[in-house]
Amino acid sequence: MLLHLSTWPEVEVYLQKSQGIILPIGSTEQHGPTGLIGTDAICAEAIARGVGEATQAMIAPTMNVGMALHHTAFPGTISLRPSTLILVIRDYITCLAQAGFSKFYFINGHGGNIATLKAAFSETYAHLEEKQITNASKVECQIANWFMCSSVYKLAKELYGEQEGSHATPSEVAITQYIYPEAIKQAPLSPEVPSGHKIYSATNFRQRYPDGRMGSNPALATPEHGKQFYDLAVRELSNGYWEFLNGE
Amino acid sequence: MLLHLSTWPEVEVYLQKSQGIILPIGSTEQHGPTGLIGTDAICAEAIARGVGEATQAMIAPTMNVGMALHHTAFPGTISLRPSTLILVIRDYITCLAQAGFSKFYFINGHGGNIATLKAAFSETYAHLEEKQITNASKVECQIANWFMCSSVYKLAKELYGEQEGSHATPSEVAITQYIYPEAIKQAPLSPEVPSGHKIYSATNFRQRYPDGRMGSNPALATPEHGKQFYDLAVRELSNGYWEFLNGE
Amino acid sequence: MLLHLSTWPEVEVYLQKSQGIILPIGSTEQHGPTGLIGTDAICAEAIARGVGEATQAMIAPTMNVGMALHHTAFPGTISLRPSTLILVIRDYITCLAQAGFSKFYFINGHGGNIATLKAAFSETYAHLEEKQITNASKVECQIANWFMCSSVYKLAKELYGEQEGSHATPSEVAITQYIYPEAIKQAPLSPEVPSGHKIYSATNFRQRYPDGRMGSNPALATPEHGKQFYDLAVRELSNGYWEFLNGE
Amino acid sequence: MLLHLSTWPEVEVYLQKSQGIILPIGSTEQHGPTGLIGTDAICAEAIARGVGEATQAMIAPTMNVGMALHHTAFPGTISLRPSTLILVIRDYITCLAQAGFSKFYFINGHGGNIATLKAAFSETYAHLEEKQITNASKVECQIANWFMCSSVYKLAKELYGEQEGSHATPSEVAITQYIYPEAIKQAPLSPEVPSGHKIYSATNFRQRYPDGRMGSNPALATPEHGKQFYDLAVRELSNGYWEFLNGE
Amino acid sequence: MLLHLSTWPEVEVYLQKSQGIILPIGSTEQHGPTGLIGTDAICAEAIARGVGEATQAMIAPTMNVGMALHHTAFPGTISLRPSTLILVIRDYITCLAQAGFSKFYFINGHGGNIATLKAAFSETYAHLEEKQITNASKVECQIANWFMCSSVYKLAKELYGEQEGSHATPSEVAITQYIYPEAIKQAPLSPEVPSGHKIYSATNFRQRYPDGRMGSNPALATPEHGKQFYDLAVRELSNGYWEFLNGE
Amino acid sequence: MLLHLSTWPEVEVYLQKSQGIILPIGSTEQHGPTGLIGTDAICAEAIARGVGEATQAMIAPTMNVGMALHHTAFPGTISLRPSTLILVIRDYITCLAQAGFSKFYFINGHGGNIATLKAAFSETYAHLEEKQITNASKVECQIANWFMCSSVYKLAKELYGEQEGSHATPSEVAITQYIYPEAIKQAPLSPEVPSGHKIYSATNFRQRYPDGRMGSNPALATPEHGKQFYDLAVRELSNGYWEFLNGE
Repeated sequence: MLLHLSTWPEVEVYLQKSQGIILPIGSTEQHGPTGLIGTDAICAEAIARGVGEATQAMIAPTMNVGMALHHTAFPGTISLRPSTLILVIRDYITCLAQAGFSKFYFINGHGGNIATLKAAFSETYAHLEEKQITNASKVECQIANWFMCSSVYKLAKELYGEQEGSHATPSEVAITQYIYPEAIKQAPLSPEVPSGHKIYSATNFRQRYPDGRMGSNPALATPEHGKQFYDLAVRELSNGYWEFLNGE
Repeated sequence: MLLHLSTWPEVEVYLQKSQGIILPIGSTEQHGPTGLIGTDAICAEAIARGVGEATQAMIAPTMNVGMALHHTAFPGTISLRPSTLILVIRDYITCLAQAGFSKFYFINGHGGNIATLKAAFSETYAHLEEKQITNASKVECQIANWFMCSSVYKLAKELYGEQEGSHATPSEVAITQYIYPEAIKQAPLSPEVPSGHKIYSATNFRQRYPDGRMGSNPALATPEHGKQFYDLAVRELSNGYWEFLNGE
Repeated sequence: MLLHLSTWPEVEVYLQKSQGIILPIGSTEQHGPTGLIGTDAICAEAIARGVGEATQAMIAPTMNVGMALHHTAFPGTISLRPSTLILVIRDYITCLAQAGFSKFYFINGHGGNIATLKAAFSETYAHLEEKQITNASKVECQIANWFMCSSVYKLAKELYGEQEGSHATPSEVAITQYIYPEAIKQAPLSPEVPSGHKIYSATNFRQRYPDGRMGSNPALATPEHGKQFYDLAVRELSNGYWEFLNGE
Repeated sequence: MLLHLSTWPEVEVYLQKSQGIILPIGSTEQHGPTGLIGTDAICAEAIARGVGEATQAMIAPTMNVGMALHHTAFPGTISLRPSTLILVIRDYITCLAQAGFSKFYFINGHGGNIATLKAAFSETYAHLEEKQITNASKVECQIANWFMCSSVYKLAKELYGEQEGSHATPSEVAITQYIYPEAIKQAPLSPEVPSGHKIYSATNFRQRYPDGRMGSNPALATPEHGKQFYDLAVRELSNGYWEFLNGE
Repeated sequence: MLLHLSTWPEVEVYLQKSQGIILPIGSTEQHGPTGLIGTDAICAEAIARGVGEATQAMIAPTMNVGMALHHTAFPGTISLRPSTLILVIRDYITCLAQAGFSKFYFINGHGGNIATLKAAFSETYAHLEEKQITNASKVECQIANWFMCSSVYKLAKELYGEQEGSHATPSEVAITQYIYPEAIKQAPLSPEVPSGHKIYSATNFRQRYPDGRMGSNPALATPEHGKQFYDLAVRELSNGYWEFLNGE
Repeated sequence: MLLHLSTWPEVEVYLQKSQGIILPIGSTEQHGPTGLIGTDAICAEAIARGVGEATQAMIAPTMNVGMALHHTAFPGTISLRPSTLILVIRDYITCLAQAGFSKFYFINGHGGNIATLKAAFSETYAHLEEKQITNASKVECQIANWFMCSSVYKLAKELYGEQEGSHATPSEVAITQYIYPEAIKQAPLSPEVPSGHKIYSATNFRQRYPDGRMGSNPALATPEHGKQFYDLAVRELSNGYWEFLNGE
């Protein structure tokens, strides 16, 4: 059930049977010479909608822009500052909690969002308890990173080994190819690309990782792989959502 | 050209020929018993993409959530506070301006966003000049409200007269029916609905406008009307974008 | 009844018969080669006091400084950022609402304040409802721009036609001449002055409008005109205030 | 020279001979059963203008509202939070410093403003140096409290002894009587009023000081005293301003 | 009783007999060629613990970093901005007030903290009353500056006369020598050092006071003096704490 | 080398040979019936000083209070909000970076700090690049959690197995016993304590984990274990610091 295609009376009915909601969050950031700038949002949205179909959960509109300050030396990247994103999350949850939602399941497509999301949850719990709204202390938020699903991780290792890398990975590129086959991009890729996980300032990032990739070879991606990753992520996160709802 | 389906080198190429970008902004808010909660984002996104096709402009990801605090007494509404939205706009423009964009054309689907957007532009101009980034003083932002296009306004008056109202209007509902015919909703609508433009607190809003509509009769909407409105808005805003780029 | 010339027990008595208050808000900004930097505050204050005499309304101290960032490339301009002004308005209304005021009528002398004031009202309604103070949901704010009064607008067109312009207008200069005849300034004015409404950064503003005027000829102003404008504005806004109090 | 009655070219001329500006700051707060709510702003403004005449200094518009949170349990009080006032001061000084002013002399009428003003100055110095504006490191701010002038203090002790108290004092009331003889208020005053300087929350303040006075007997005030205080303060602060300009 | 060496059940027991807590606050800032960067925190912590032993009061962890922006042109200085420090104080007091503490006694080692602390207290009282937590209006904060104790001041004058100065004073250096005899530093000190109290920007400060001292001769300090100062401050502030608890 | 026991000229000398600094950060929060409220700060400070001795690194004053909002339903806990802690970290690093430090190694004693610290680093990198200070893009921050050292983790598993738990763990309690043997606390501990890692609001936390422990049995801790953990952590983090300095 997609929130943006629902009416408010439909939401009212939904809330009588469930207080759960899934919020897809991505990023708008460079993904190397061939990866789409919207990769993280595309993956999060597609998987979230798949989970929504499997679980009948309400799906909020996708947060297209996240915390990607370290990518801002590449054109096309848009990032919120962590302090801004914290306020955005607080505002989202406050509105939805006042309406009766209490279980917030963030399906996340971008590693760079994780820390700020966790900080935002802490900030928000305190904000809601301070506001003394009904059931404030029952609000629970969880991050579900599709790329950290064990089934996804296993397949990526099988298909790509070390060439999965850690940014502009073939697995995420594959999902975007599956979703948008008309937007598959080609570009020459240096066979040797710096790997590692060190991330500091935007300038430093571009110096370390000149074409935007971190140890990955996205040329290995195919739309068929994308479907496999998509299916695995949907299955694993659907279970994750049920467990979250049930408080396990 | 959709930013989220582009790569960063493609953005780099684009910037050599244009510094303009179109940012669709909507809202996630109740639209009466039959209007979709995503109405404002759906309209803004669809029209922005139409304008993008007509003008070859870069289209940023849609801002799905805007300033809709007055609708938050209805479930399903998500709103940023004005102070949060100002920071979001500042962050978006700062990132894009650093990359070389200087003409920001916001195609807006929600009247409630206008004041905060204008405030955000002022805040951002000062922020950029303070940062002393190259060409800071050349950054220009403009709001283009599709529902205020004169051609749109004229057609709405012809088709609906006074029943156009000012929220959950048949014109915006018609566009969503055109875009998402599978999501056309039916519900009994009281023939008499409060009209007026007074908007204060969320509680007050729901008391004044009990089912969420403001003087409108969305039952008059049809997908065919929606296509007409869409075409008019795309044409008028495409011209508006060209004029904006040319500094007229 | 002027708040600054009242005692707190007098305010207590006033609140037993009315919960309305008028807040004059202006700006401290360049008004071309002959216009006073305090023009917007002077006009707002004078008209607000006139309305106060006509309606027995409580008049708050004048907010002398508003949102005039686009004028800051001219010396003497003082501006709050929109984000600051939002906090200022929130603080004002919170204090007064806790004391029992609920109808806030802002008599405004500066177009550049409008967007931020509207954003501030939305922010404040949510803040008050969050605080759960008594009658939070009854708080109502309204902007009354004296220069948009239909009677004022009509007279300006009659007297000045196109030379009214949109900043440093003869109508506002006339009112300041009526209030402060001792401060009428003379300076050579280029007969041709750029018109238009485009406003972006402060640097851009000064480039577009080199002497600070926007299409206006303030040399046409006279103190006698000023009295006429003053009288019209006081009459029209007094009616506006009564309607606002009565919820019309 | 009053900023609000000047034009921007006049300010430009002024800046060629002086970079000093005087900013009157008061408060809008209860002053006991007979003291005017605007007392602090009235005194600061009148004295600042007197100093301006004596020294030819530029006088900014009066900041009517300051930090008076502890008075907000009495109706009519309007206060900024310290965090808001810090931003306001930062915005004022930033605008004026960019225009070329560097010596900011705050003539202050309210003890409750002092701490926040000092904090604001520190915040602003760092902000300006961070912005790297020309001469940022030359900006100097000083608070001049008229009620702490030694000549004023001495006269108050002579005239009133212990009955000067520390809020709603006869000396400040006397000045308002001198400035606004038409607004002299009468009310029965309990001969015994709590004294002391302890100030905590607003609720606590009203419990400790039930009619708003702190150890003072404003019934002793006369307009003639007011003139004496005014003259002393103007003389002493004019000297203070000259010394400040000369860096002594 | 040291909070950091207590368990939460011990705090629970403590709160049954007292709602008072002592918070040492210092600074991390240059103290001239021989003074320790931690001087203000070292003194505040040592004296606070002495007072804690004398009064059985709970002692919070030392706030090592305060408001020292004016010292930041010297390496090793760390400062919060006033706006940050206000939030820190608000967060501390809010947590402790929710747990039941209501009397907050700040033993302060740095003059530069005073204004911001006072501003923070005002901000916090309003925040707590807004939150409507139990007993919000009973929260009371007080600053106790050890270096302003009359007994300390008197001894400093006796021992050092004018050479006490106002920053990097022999009295504060003496206390650090008493606490950390192993960290007594030697360096050539110019016999003539600028005195005065003027403090503006960081750059300005270093220009005025090139080696960081303000009129002081810390070479006069001895550990024996330090013990004397320590004993006097502990005695005087212990009495001050009792009076504060008793509401005198 | 301890910053608080150094003078500014000593810091100047240090900076000529190293731009690294170690910042211990802990928390002030409940640690079950027997754990000290200062546990996380005590461990971080002790280990940081050990690393400082081993590496000759500069050690900043300990940040005693971190992000522990979820523990605030237990008395004695003090927490910053994430948004406050971000500002604190920004202020610290900005001051130190301006002085010439560029390698910031945070030795952290509290899992709840990690997310906010990472968010703060991102915020700060962008802030420094925006300020355009010299070498802004060279600033690098790293978190080193002593309790995640592989050698520490291995020993904890050997000594305690599952009873290590995840809060108020015997390993951290052991270190505090080693550092403060005089403050070893005894209290009856239920043999069965809820385990798991779920953390939401403060109220929820106390409901889930009634005595504050999360699956741990701190009764197993001994001072001798503490010394072992301390030695392992110092060795491993000393190596980590060298690697960080060398950019590995």
